[in-house]
Amino acid sequence: MSSSIRLAVIPGDGIGQEVVAEGLKVLAAVLPEGVKLETKEYDLGARRWHATGETLPDAELEQLKEHDAILLGAVGDPSVPSGVLERGLLLKLRFAFDHHVNLRPAKLYPNTASPLASDPVIDFVVVREGTEGPYVGNGGSLRTGTEHEVATEVSLNTAFGIERVVRDAYARAQARPRRKLTLVHKNNVLVHAGHLWKNIFDRVGREYPEVTTDYLHVDAATIFFVTQPERFDVIVTDNLFGDILTDLAAAVTGGIGLAASGNINPSGAFPPMFEPVHGSAPDIAGQAKADPTATVLSVAMLLQHLGYAEEAARIEAAVTADLAERTGPRATHEIGDAIAARVSA
Amino acid sequence: MSSSIRLAVIPGDGIGQEVVAEGLKVLAAVLPEGVKLETKEYDLGARRWHATGETLPDAELEQLKEHDAILLGAVGDPSVPSGVLERGLLLKLRFAFDHHVNLRPAKLYPNTASPLASDPVIDFVVVREGTEGPYVGNGGSLRTGTEHEVATEVSLNTAFGIERVVRDAYARAQARPRRKLTLVHKNNVLVHAGHLWKNIFDRVGREYPEVTTDYLHVDAATIFFVTQPERFDVIVTDNLFGDILTDLAAAVTGGIGLAASGNINPSGAFPPMFEPVHGSAPDIAGQAKADPTATVLSVAMLLQHLGYAEEAARIEAAVTADLAERTGPRATHEIGDAIAARVSA
Ligand SMILES: CC(C)[C@H](C(=O)O)[C@@H](O)C(=O)O
Ligand SMILES: CC(C)[C@H](C(=O)O)[C@@H](O)C(=O)O
Repeated sequence: MSSSIRLAVIPGDGIGQEVVAEGLKVLAAVLPEGVKLETKEYDLGARRWHATGETLPDAELEQLKEHDAILLGAVGDPSVPSGVLERGLLLKLRFAFDHHVNLRPAKLYPNTASPLASDPVIDFVVVREGTEGPYVGNGGSLRTGTEHEVATEVSLNTAFGIERVVRDAYARAQARPRRKLTLVHKNNVLVHAGHLWKNIFDRVGREYPEVTTDYLHVDAATIFFVTQPERFDVIVTDNLFGDILTDLAAAVTGGIGLAASGNINPSGAFPPMFEPVHGSAPDIAGQAKADPTATVLSVAMLLQHLGYAEEAARIEAAVTADLAERTGPRATHEIGDAIAARVSA
Repeated sequence: MSSSIRLAVIPGDGIGQEVVAEGLKVLAAVLPEGVKLETKEYDLGARRWHATGETLPDAELEQLKEHDAILLGAVGDPSVPSGVLERGLLLKLRFAFDHHVNLRPAKLYPNTASPLASDPVIDFVVVREGTEGPYVGNGGSLRTGTEHEVATEVSLNTAFGIERVVRDAYARAQARPRRKLTLVHKNNVLVHAGHLWKNIFDRVGREYPEVTTDYLHVDAATIFFVTQPERFDVIVTDNLFGDILTDLAAAVTGGIGLAASGNINPSGAFPPMFEPVHGSAPDIAGQAKADPTATVLSVAMLLQHLGYAEEAARIEAAVTADLAERTGPRATHEIGDAIAARVSA
């Protein structure tokens, strides 16, 4: 915990701009008097790419390193070819900053309708590996565009990379009341990567005798997400399975409008990045229709990570209260105002 | 349509035995007088592996080729290391018989509780590619068991392999009233494989002007499975995404006890294999608790495929009626008896 926060802000595209404004509003409202907040905005995303062809120039990557944390809204637009901003900006950041812990809580808040009929209690966190697996960008295409094209994608998995994220997940499970950790993979088909994950999971588990462990194939895990989400406490999984499972988790907890995430390098070598799980939603951009709650909760994760646990808890409580009392639809800034008022009260 | 059916039967492990017995009961009941049914049972699965170390010997693979179709119950047991039977038996069969169309209908039957609160209308079919992608078994491990281990899994994708399954999916979409086809992939991250899929999907689509098309990333698709399953008609997707999505589809349509599937090589070069999507469920094996309906519906798919459309429709109708009238829990054979009675009535 420092008495100043140097925050890099990447509003990005579409609703990203709108939700980040509310996130910053709540951040300013919750911070104690003595803490100085310095923000610097970076113009990255579809607009920038159209204007200059750049996604994330090295000079800006260097500047981002000089911050304590990054807050990102959302990036992407249908006018940009699929993959350009994802690989050139979002994934470039995750890999350059070695953000191997991609943290995604899934919590069903009161007065929030889950699409599930069982009215379940959902409160788990997915620790998604962020720097390996099928996301490494190790693919290629031969005879591109012909009827003989062959395209590959290589999933790369290392003992080093798996062990560090598995350790992080065990530590988190140990610190939670239920102390349960589930590994999700597909080790009956992806036998080499899957067995490496399972072996490390079992070995590290011997150091955490109080943590109950479980293994599920990814296909079976999706079934339990809708039939028995209560069974999960902490989940650790590979990059691609984590991507899929956390969108599903967002859906069963009432939608992507509430799902927050953090991309963390626990070594502290590079700044962490916090962002809502949702995308730029160009269809509703500029209409004040976006729910900024996921960004506000991402700000809470950011504060928690920087050591402002009390402030993070205040945001969590404010969001819970705000959701509990909400009735009709509200504009983006109305939601931000309401939460900001609660945290500063 | 032939006037005899040579059927290879692989009951397998756990509840596989029990559900296959009911599937065969219904098959015998529905077949017209003149059709001769010859079945030959193959003892493959966990028991066989424990006894002999064999998963699918070449001699038996050759014999299986001499049949019109294969009916499989379920294979697997916790006593067998993960991957042995999957790669050595199930996937060996899919690859040896080039079962590139893995067909998995998702239908919410009347009087069947979906875990979704919205009481949705669900009636779509997933055309899962069955012989490529991350399932090819092209992986390896270096420095196995050390802290420097590296494990890879290669997803292999060919224009040839994708085009044939995409064509199959368009033809199916064209033949359905809604004529809608959704491609699911992750082409913003797995850019090489994803773009190959997308390019072929778009190109073949120009031959089907009446089919409405759509593209979804796999993570977004899982959201729609629980928030808006009505939006799907036919889905075409890669092997791994299809595995995940069809378990989720089974869950939202009231459970894996009803999900049928077919592994098909439309060229006819090798016999198709039909099987329930569920596993061997050793926890309830031998207790007459398993629901044989998924196997019975797999028998209907088998008949449809062999040209017995009317008989297939009779099974579908019998299952629908049986589900509509069910009240309390019934034993495995009671369900089989009830459906058999309806189809022969
Ligand atoms: C936009 C995309 C690269 C990203 C991912 O696949 O990780 C997103 O879906 C996410 O979950 O953060
Ligand atoms: C058992 C396993 C190899 C198989 C798969 O992953 O395809 C199963 O999950 C399925 O969906 O048929």
